[in-house]
Amino acid sequence: MQITRYTDYSLRVLIYLAINKQQLTTISDIATSYQISKNHLMKIVQQLNQQSYVLATRGKNGGIKLNRDAKEINVGALVREIEDKSKLIECFGAENKCVITPSCQLKNIFAEAQENFFKTLDAYTLQDLIGEQEEAALTNLLAINLL
Amino acid sequence: MQITRYTDYSLRVLIYLAINKQQLTTISDIATSYQISKNHLMKIVQQLNQQSYVLATRGKNGGIKLNRDAKEINVGALVREIEDKSKLIECFGAENKCVITPSCQLKNIFAEAQENFFKTLDAYTLQDLIGEQEEAALTNLLAINLL
Repeated sequence: MQITRYTDYSLRVLIYLAINKQQLTTISDIATSYQISKNHLMKIVQQLNQQSYVLATRGKNGGIKLNRDAKEINVGALVREIEDKSKLIECFGAENKCVITPSCQLKNIFAEAQENFFKTLDAYTLQDLIGEQEEAALTNLLAINLL
Repeated sequence: MQITRYTDYSLRVLIYLAINKQQLTTISDIATSYQISKNHLMKIVQQLNQQSYVLATRGKNGGIKLNRDAKEINVGALVREIEDKSKLIECFGAENKCVITPSCQLKNIFAEAQENFFKTLDAYTLQDLIGEQEEAALTNLLAINLL
């Protein structure tokens, strides 16, 4: 059972921006901090910008920052928006060729399980991913690769 | 979000055997019915045999059948047993390189969501995947590619 890397990285970008909310950040800084590909992040930040989670400022002194308070970003809503729900198991997708699908209950039961997965995340905000007392520790951890 | 094909096919094998519980079945018949690779199924049936979900009889008139009543096979227990729980998101795995993991709450929150996914499946048995009135329809659907 696996969440896409795309969703994983989207969450990491938002966590980064929530921790560094006082200043504008560059995609290069985020890529260096997490030691992940800048190219991967470009597309992700672009989409987060379109979805208005992120605000991008162009130009020499430009950069990105969070467009809403971290307490206003619901993790369940975010993951539902990014993650492809039609991929859980073959019979969820348009390409499905399983011959028993019309009468099989597997699809309904797994859809219920997936919904309960998302519902669990509905109870949390981006701020909860950072935690109450962990912000300073996270700031230090994120800075390690920037030194 | 995606379940492995391995788990998907394991479920389909068990559904097939639950529907055809009166006779011994061959891997070839299952592969033909679902139009999936026999080689894929070999390994899956071998593991289901080791896990004592399936009973295999060798020899000329050999074949496989369900080793327990379909009502005795819990879907949650089965999926937990087959599916790799350390793959949900990078920070779950041994290969994780995410620098913020020691202080980040994402892992705990996603572990809770994954557990609620499995708990939903815990409420169902293999018999529930077939349904109460769908057995005849499923028998016909499975036979289409064998004709």
